[in-house]
Amino acid sequence: MPIPLKPASGWRHTCHTVIFEHDTPAGRAFDLCLLLAIVASVLTVMLDSVAGIRAQWGDLLTTLEWGFTLLFTVEYLLRVACVERPWRYVLSPLGVIDLLSILPTYLGLLLPQSIYYLSDIRVLRLLRVFRVLKLAGFLNAGSSITQALAASRRKITLFIYVMLMMAVVLGTLMYVIEGEANGFTSIPRGIYWAIVTLTTLGYGDLTPKTGLGQALAAVVTLMGYGILAVPTGIVTAEFARVRDDEARRRCPACNAAGHDGDALFCRRCGQRLPD
Amino acid sequence: MPIPLKPASGWRHTCHTVIFEHDTPAGRAFDLCLLLAIVASVLTVMLDSVAGIRAQWGDLLTTLEWGFTLLFTVEYLLRVACVERPWRYVLSPLGVIDLLSILPTYLGLLLPQSIYYLSDIRVLRLLRVFRVLKLAGFLNAGSSITQALAASRRKITLFIYVMLMMAVVLGTLMYVIEGEANGFTSIPRGIYWAIVTLTTLGYGDLTPKTGLGQALAAVVTLMGYGILAVPTGIVTAEFARVRDDEARRRCPACNAAGHDGDALFCRRCGQRLPD
Amino acid sequence: MPIPLKPASGWRHTCHTVIFEHDTPAGRAFDLCLLLAIVASVLTVMLDSVAGIRAQWGDLLTTLEWGFTLLFTVEYLLRVACVERPWRYVLSPLGVIDLLSILPTYLGLLLPQSIYYLSDIRVLRLLRVFRVLKLAGFLNAGSSITQALAASRRKITLFIYVMLMMAVVLGTLMYVIEGEANGFTSIPRGIYWAIVTLTTLGYGDLTPKTGLGQALAAVVTLMGYGILAVPTGIVTAEFARVRDDEARRRCPACNAAGHDGDALFCRRCGQRLPD
Amino acid sequence: MPIPLKPASGWRHTCHTVIFEHDTPAGRAFDLCLLLAIVASVLTVMLDSVAGIRAQWGDLLTTLEWGFTLLFTVEYLLRVACVERPWRYVLSPLGVIDLLSILPTYLGLLLPQSIYYLSDIRVLRLLRVFRVLKLAGFLNAGSSITQALAASRRKITLFIYVMLMMAVVLGTLMYVIEGEANGFTSIPRGIYWAIVTLTTLGYGDLTPKTGLGQALAAVVTLMGYGILAVPTGIVTAEFARVRDDEARRRCPACNAAGHDGDALFCRRCGQRLPD
Repeated sequence: MPIPLKPASGWRHTCHTVIFEHDTPAGRAFDLCLLLAIVASVLTVMLDSVAGIRAQWGDLLTTLEWGFTLLFTVEYLLRVACVERPWRYVLSPLGVIDLLSILPTYLGLLLPQSIYYLSDIRVLRLLRVFRVLKLAGFLNAGSSITQALAASRRKITLFIYVMLMMAVVLGTLMYVIEGEANGFTSIPRGIYWAIVTLTTLGYGDLTPKTGLGQALAAVVTLMGYGILAVPTGIVTAEFARVRDDEARRRCPACNAAGHDGDALFCRRCGQRLPD
Repeated sequence: MPIPLKPASGWRHTCHTVIFEHDTPAGRAFDLCLLLAIVASVLTVMLDSVAGIRAQWGDLLTTLEWGFTLLFTVEYLLRVACVERPWRYVLSPLGVIDLLSILPTYLGLLLPQSIYYLSDIRVLRLLRVFRVLKLAGFLNAGSSITQALAASRRKITLFIYVMLMMAVVLGTLMYVIEGEANGFTSIPRGIYWAIVTLTTLGYGDLTPKTGLGQALAAVVTLMGYGILAVPTGIVTAEFARVRDDEARRRCPACNAAGHDGDALFCRRCGQRLPD
Repeated sequence: MPIPLKPASGWRHTCHTVIFEHDTPAGRAFDLCLLLAIVASVLTVMLDSVAGIRAQWGDLLTTLEWGFTLLFTVEYLLRVACVERPWRYVLSPLGVIDLLSILPTYLGLLLPQSIYYLSDIRVLRLLRVFRVLKLAGFLNAGSSITQALAASRRKITLFIYVMLMMAVVLGTLMYVIEGEANGFTSIPRGIYWAIVTLTTLGYGDLTPKTGLGQALAAVVTLMGYGILAVPTGIVTAEFARVRDDEARRRCPACNAAGHDGDALFCRRCGQRLPD
Repeated sequence: MPIPLKPASGWRHTCHTVIFEHDTPAGRAFDLCLLLAIVASVLTVMLDSVAGIRAQWGDLLTTLEWGFTLLFTVEYLLRVACVERPWRYVLSPLGVIDLLSILPTYLGLLLPQSIYYLSDIRVLRLLRVFRVLKLAGFLNAGSSITQALAASRRKITLFIYVMLMMAVVLGTLMYVIEGEANGFTSIPRGIYWAIVTLTTLGYGDLTPKTGLGQALAAVVTLMGYGILAVPTGIVTAEFARVRDDEARRRCPACNAAGHDGDALFCRRCGQRLPD
């Protein structure tokens, strides 16, 4: 993720260094604490959803939950305070995630108990689990994985588009062949079956019962194999390209690329290459 | 898809530009409307197949259905009218799909109700779902995905051929080992099991119960792994080749390929290369 | 498959051309008939195993079966007769398959009925399905698929070896964690589970029921992902190498490889390259 | 695995040659015997866990077990005796595995029967199955598989990290959508479902029942496809790099790599390259 603009000096300058940068001892210590707090708070939400654990440790979990909420609130306020353009941070993806990770807990205070206990609103508290997305802040945006995925985006979209077309056709065929008696009660259910089958997921909650249906399923699965190879091929080819690019250096004079890793001079203009 | 021949001038010229071409504002607007109409009409067919929704919204869905049918009929007639060689379009894959996407609805009018409600004929109405194939008109035939798949076609056919041979042998073995008591009631059913297992689909509707059968299944699955890698390898290698070809330029004089991206002169005839 | 030694002249010379070679009209016609006969005879065996079909068409299937057996017997005798070294053909893999595809039918004549109907001996008749392996004679041994698979053999063996070690350890852990109450009745069954899980087959006939078991299953599956990539990576890398080799030509003078596809002269000794 | 330091002479020198080295006839014979003993002892533990076999052959299996334990004890003592720095071997991974493979059997003697038959302690005996890890001693650490996996370690860790983040979010969504009535009794169970689905394992023990849940499952599976391609792409690209490196030779003078397979002179310093 790109680092927000840093104030010139003062406590906001220091604070920015600790919170947003990763190459000072204080920054690394902050990152580690934040990482642990995120993981611990997500574990708290998860354990709170297990009936047996909530019954026995409910009070402890609620206390911990408030602790983490206050911690993340302080962190959020500090982040807003120590960047040059606060609104830009607040509206950035990470800013929205940071806000979303504290709001659900406060919701319980703002709304009266009677409304709060309606199940639809309680469900909102589970949004706390999206705190796990705060971990995305630790991902290196310039890594070759994100590069390769970004480069393959258009092709993968096209692939999913073709896949959905096939799923609609196959799902309808199966709905006609198997019929409602065998669980294929509607076309959307047939499409659900087609996607579960084409991706070789194969839950087994909806399987062909008739001979013709089983023959179609076998053909679809084999066909799905060729298709299955497509996204892998796309991403692999992009990985190979990114890796090749990394292995090549550009000439500072004529910007020519494609030099071998140990070449000393530019192969087009003779300029000495940097190490 | 290749664009059909365009009339020299007149309203058919204008109409051809809007319907078949994608680089004018009108053409793009037409494409977008068509795309939305296709998706909406397929959704209508899908929702109509869900018993609960049909009971409540049946009349609305029938009305919508007739609207889409009339829309696609007009579109089909315009397409036929504004190309130079109408029969060539009518008999092309896209022309057949366009026709198939309107015929099923009219079938209900042409046939008397008493015959129409025989289930086999009602099923024909579901052919309307093949409208989704009209979306294929938006695919770019020259894309690297279609190229790579076309180049791998022979190898993938060979792979499916070997896979089927293995499935016949393994399915028969399993039929002998497990027997009818464990659900393997015939060799075709054994082959169905073998394909579901070799592709790691694994529905679980037919699984080995005896120790020997489970041992064979485990061996087959591990073996299947090496095989599973084959189509992926084929497609990936083709993707890499297509990508390499794209990165190379051809000489305008001698048509030699394989120049590095920054070469200035043809490496065979010395002709200056275009940028 | 390599073609057996051909007699110098006479009817055996002609017969060899038709049966073993694929580049004369007669040879191609023979290949096509043989292909159809193999597929039809395998279908006969398969249909004969379906109880409903056997009850109704049993006599027809038996007659067809004898027809195919006589046909393949004649083919086998001709093959033996028209090669220079008959024993070498008889003992070659294809010769053994050809013999195995006719023996099981004759077994019914040689053994008395009372013994024949013991189920273990009847099962031998199903060996007829191995006729499908006769199709292997049509595979091109020099194709890039077989080359790539042969080149990756050692690495894939190593991979299966590591996979089995992991399956033994994980299967034992699961046997300890889940215990007999949850279906993990022995270590071999645990290993069966581990292989079904590591390969993402996932039948679902044996799944973890305890929280700890489910957590282990989740970890194993994610780990399995890295491993799953290994055979694909191995085969893909070999495909890429085979394809690279194909794209390169060797110098007839100095045997140097690595020329681009359109190079005119050897890049090491200047010898003109063949087209 | 690296070979431990060898004593200069005497019986320990001879013994070290036989036990730790693989290039003398005696060393190869020892390796083969050890391999067979490991496989046989693991089979013994496995068979002992099958109730039916233990009831009938229990005494034989116990005798065999003691035989293998004594054999491995002798092997362990010899290994400790014939290396220069015994403690280094004892504390190495292979040394720990060698010790763990004999300890569990002796445990039965050391502890009184009354305590021994408490099930938790009996379970310790199953640790004998980890003897299978002794096979790791036969793996070639320098192979290209281990190299490629080691090189991809960081990227695969990153991938699993992203995968877990997605699983937490999707598992929570599914817990909210499907609810306890459909088996999604807690967030951890939802995460278990998400991992089983994203990896296309698809046990089918926990599947979405509501329409919305099935739609989400279908979307997740298709998305999972792009992700599924990532580890494969990573490992494949690394395999290709390792293979490329193998195909290149280094200059003995300046250590420059990247020479073509048939180059005669170093392309950087002009030094004649070795064959």
